[in-house]
Amino acid sequence: MRDFSQNHRWLSINTATIRRSRGADLPLTDIIEACAQRGIRAISPWRDQVQAAGLAKVSTLVRSHGLQLSGYCRGGMFPATDAAGLKAARDDNRRAVDEAAELNAACLVLVVGALPGALQGKAAHKDIALARSQVRDGIADLLEYARTAKMPLAIEPLHPMYAADRACINTMEQALDVCDELDPRRSGESSERPQAALGVAVDVYHLWWDPKLEQQIVRAGRDRLLAFHACDWLTPTTDLLNDRGMMGDGVIDIPRIRGWVEAQGFAGYSEVEIFSTGNWWKRPHQEVLDTCIARHRTAV
Amino acid sequence: MRDFSQNHRWLSINTATIRRSRGADLPLTDIIEACAQRGIRAISPWRDQVQAAGLAKVSTLVRSHGLQLSGYCRGGMFPATDAAGLKAARDDNRRAVDEAAELNAACLVLVVGALPGALQGKAAHKDIALARSQVRDGIADLLEYARTAKMPLAIEPLHPMYAADRACINTMEQALDVCDELDPRRSGESSERPQAALGVAVDVYHLWWDPKLEQQIVRAGRDRLLAFHACDWLTPTTDLLNDRGMMGDGVIDIPRIRGWVEAQGFAGYSEVEIFSTGNWWKRPHQEVLDTCIARHRTAV
Repeated sequence: MRDFSQNHRWLSINTATIRRSRGADLPLTDIIEACAQRGIRAISPWRDQVQAAGLAKVSTLVRSHGLQLSGYCRGGMFPATDAAGLKAARDDNRRAVDEAAELNAACLVLVVGALPGALQGKAAHKDIALARSQVRDGIADLLEYARTAKMPLAIEPLHPMYAADRACINTMEQALDVCDELDPRRSGESSERPQAALGVAVDVYHLWWDPKLEQQIVRAGRDRLLAFHACDWLTPTTDLLNDRGMMGDGVIDIPRIRGWVEAQGFAGYSEVEIFSTGNWWKRPHQEVLDTCIARHRTAV
Repeated sequence: MRDFSQNHRWLSINTATIRRSRGADLPLTDIIEACAQRGIRAISPWRDQVQAAGLAKVSTLVRSHGLQLSGYCRGGMFPATDAAGLKAARDDNRRAVDEAAELNAACLVLVVGALPGALQGKAAHKDIALARSQVRDGIADLLEYARTAKMPLAIEPLHPMYAADRACINTMEQALDVCDELDPRRSGESSERPQAALGVAVDVYHLWWDPKLEQQIVRAGRDRLLAFHACDWLTPTTDLLNDRGMMGDGVIDIPRIRGWVEAQGFAGYSEVEIFSTGNWWKRPHQEVLDTCIARHRTAV
C-alpha cells in the first residue's frame, strides 16, 4: 500500500468538491488554477462545468498545467420511457466519450440512471428490472463506441439510497456482473493502460457498508478497477445527496478499503468527491482544498 | 398470491405508524382501541410503547380484543465497546424475548445494531467487521434463550443507509448467511408454527433495491420468512429515517415483492410500518389508519 503521508502526489480533486465557494458558484477555470497552485496533479471535472467554461479552453488549461484527469463526470442516465429518450441518452453518452477523450481522462464515469422521471419526483414506472435491462443495453452500445475512442468506461455503483432516481446499479457485485456479461475477456488493455475497456469506480461513500466489498474488489482485479473515490459517511447524515463528509470526519475506514484496492494493483489517484451544501460548500474553496490535502495525508 | 382487495384480514399495524397523531404522542392503549374498532386483526408494538402502558395491561388488552402480534419491536443493538455493554445488551434482549412471549408475538424483530455510539453521533470505532462479529455472537447467544421460550427471532436487514448507526446487517443474503451459520438445520418448526427459530423480516423499504432480492427470498424459503413489512420509498426522500411513504405513494413495486414472499408459502400479515415526521404523524391517526386499510387493498 502506498504511503500517502508525505505528500499529495496521488490526490485528485473531483471538481464538485469546490463547485461552490462561500456559497457562490466557482467557475471551473478558477478551480483548475486553485488546484494547480497547490501542486495537485489531477482533477475530475463535471460536464456542466466544462460546458460552462468551454471544452477547448478547459483542454488547453489542463494541458498547460500538466494536469491529469482521474476521470470525467459523467455519462450514464440510460433508462427512458420511449425510443426517443433512449436515443437521446445514447447520443449524449457518445458526446461524453468524445469530451473525455479530448481531455485525455483516465475513464468516463457512468452514473447509470434508474426509474425515468424519479429524479424529477415523478417516476414513470416502478419496474427497476426494466431500468436495469435498459442500463445493460445502454452500456453495451456505448462500449462499442468507447472502444474506438480508447476511453475506458467506469460503472460507478451508487449507494442503494439512490436506486430510485440516480443509479440502479448499487453494489460492486452487480456492476461486475454487467462487466463480465458485456466484456468477459476484459478487453482493451494496452501497454499504455493496464485497465480493461469496462470496469468500475470504487467510491467508498457508496460501497463501504457492503459485507462483500473486499471479495468483490478481489474479483474486479487490477484491470477492472478504474477509479477510487474518497469522502466520508457522517453520523448523522442530514441529507441523502449533499451531506458528504471530509475524509476522517465520518465512520468509513478509508485506508482499509484503499488497501484492498491497492492489493489488486490499483496505482491511480485517490479522488476526493464531496457534496456538502451545509458545510464545505459554504467555506472558501482555498480552505477546502487545503483540508483535502491534509486529510489525504492522514485519513486516506 | 392472496387477494387483499376485498378486505383487510391480513393487515397488521406497526404501532410506530400512529405513535403520533396530529403531532402529539398517542398512547399504545389508544392505538390498540383504534385498530380494534376498525377490525384490524394484528399489530406490532414497540417496546417503549409497551413499557409506557404497562406490559400486563397491554397483554390483557390485546387478548380481550383477540389481536395477534405480527411481531414485537424490537431486540438487537448487540455491539458494544466493552464486556459490560455486551452483557447489558444480552440481558435486555432476554427481557425482550420474555415480553414477546407474554404477548404471544409471531416473532421478535431484531434491529441488530452497528458501530457503538454512532447513533449518538460519536462512533467509538470504524470497524464494521467487528460490529458484525459481535452481532453474530449476540444472535447466537440469544437464539439459545429464545428457543426455550419458543420465540422465533427475525433478523431485519436494514437499508444500507443505516449501516453505521442502526444495523450492520444490510441485505437478505447477509442475514441468511447468519441464519445458515447459526441454525443450519432450520430448527424450531412445529405443528403450531411452520417457521424456523431463526429467520428474517422482509421489509420492502429496506430491501426493494436489491438485485438479488427475489433469489434470496427463494433461498430463505417459508421457514425463514417470519415477517413482511410494507411502506413506500418516496422520491425525493427528505430524511434518512422519518420520511417513509404510504404504500402506493412511492416507487416500490410492493405486490411484486409480496408475490415472491407468498410464492414461498408465507401466509402471515402484511405489517404497515411508516415513520413520517413531516406528513403522516402530523395527521389524525384515524385518517392514517383508514388510509392504511385502503392502500392495503389497492397497493400491497
